[in-house]
Amino acid sequence: MDGLFISFEGPEGAGKTTQIRRICEWLDHQGISYIHVREPGGTRIGNEIRELVLRPDFDEMSMLTEVLMYASSRAQLVGEVIMPALAEGKMVLCDRYVDSSVAYQSYGAGVSLETVLTINEKATSGLTPNRTYLLDISPEVSESRVRARGGDKDRMEQRDSSFHRRVREGYLELSTRYPHRYMVIQGDQELEDINWQIKQDILRLMS
Amino acid sequence: MDGLFISFEGPEGAGKTTQIRRICEWLDHQGISYIHVREPGGTRIGNEIRELVLRPDFDEMSMLTEVLMYASSRAQLVGEVIMPALAEGKMVLCDRYVDSSVAYQSYGAGVSLETVLTINEKATSGLTPNRTYLLDISPEVSESRVRARGGDKDRMEQRDSSFHRRVREGYLELSTRYPHRYMVIQGDQELEDINWQIKQDILRLMS
Repeated sequence: MDGLFISFEGPEGAGKTTQIRRICEWLDHQGISYIHVREPGGTRIGNEIRELVLRPDFDEMSMLTEVLMYASSRAQLVGEVIMPALAEGKMVLCDRYVDSSVAYQSYGAGVSLETVLTINEKATSGLTPNRTYLLDISPEVSESRVRARGGDKDRMEQRDSSFHRRVREGYLELSTRYPHRYMVIQGDQELEDINWQIKQDILRLMS
Repeated sequence: MDGLFISFEGPEGAGKTTQIRRICEWLDHQGISYIHVREPGGTRIGNEIRELVLRPDFDEMSMLTEVLMYASSRAQLVGEVIMPALAEGKMVLCDRYVDSSVAYQSYGAGVSLETVLTINEKATSGLTPNRTYLLDISPEVSESRVRARGGDKDRMEQRDSSFHRRVREGYLELSTRYPHRYMVIQGDQELEDINWQIKQDILRLMS
């Protein structure tokens, strides 16, 4: 029996990493076997690609190159980590997946939806999550949370506010396009409330 | 008026680099405006990708990842260098292009032809050379020339002889599939003879 494949999506600062950490702690307590990966990266090769694609000095990188680089990292992650884990019956928690490319690179940056979907269909051999949690926050909240983190912005974070508005719209359109896979969660709620909703949903998916 | 786009294909050791160097010298003498690029690489970003994809310690890299990495480098090269040069009317000499992916990754390594072609069609926005010179040598000649060069073998050169036989068959199949684009040249002829054939053909293409 294959494991559950769950992805977390949303803008920077939506709380994905925090929620995944808490879900991992809860799964540990429950004795449920899982793995947790993040994109881009999650493998030795993917981490090298991640470093390249986020380098702030690579201004000349075309959007099409970026789509293909993320897809390269994803292909390695799917083949080396995600598919073997699912085959062993493990739950897979993924911090971003194909929908991030659709939201950021197509809705945000204007690469044609068909190009992003075609490349990613090949890269993942069509593997789709059983559930996607979209942590939805406004571009303003995202911006202020990212600013509060401090540090230098990477190439993704440097983009302007209209870009981030389009990304959010992209995510919301995906959620209406795939209503059975998506669960949209207001990301400005208390951490505990969000965590409770995700846990209840995972229990339902497992039952 | 767009410039001529010319690619050089063939196994390692076939003499592509030598021939391209001589053609460049000849074009310099003729006062013909051109650029010369090699794959993977040819751009700042592509060179970083080239280093990653050829690293001998990345044994776990899946073939699908490799296809996507080469396509990433190619997308950057096409968008940043090749298309602008052609638009300025310059001749473009390319040391390997899409057909290398088809020969090595599909015929050689077994990735489906449809996957390699679909990904590369997206990566290049369908840009195809006007002429492809296939320098054809046997796997045995290739092996002995690569050995004579010395140095450590990269991941591509480490592959076994049946792989290199399939690559050659792939190239020959491509040449029959695209007879108007391809010119097959026996790579075990004298350098001067090969060079003369290429120059005559380029003069015809330009006339």
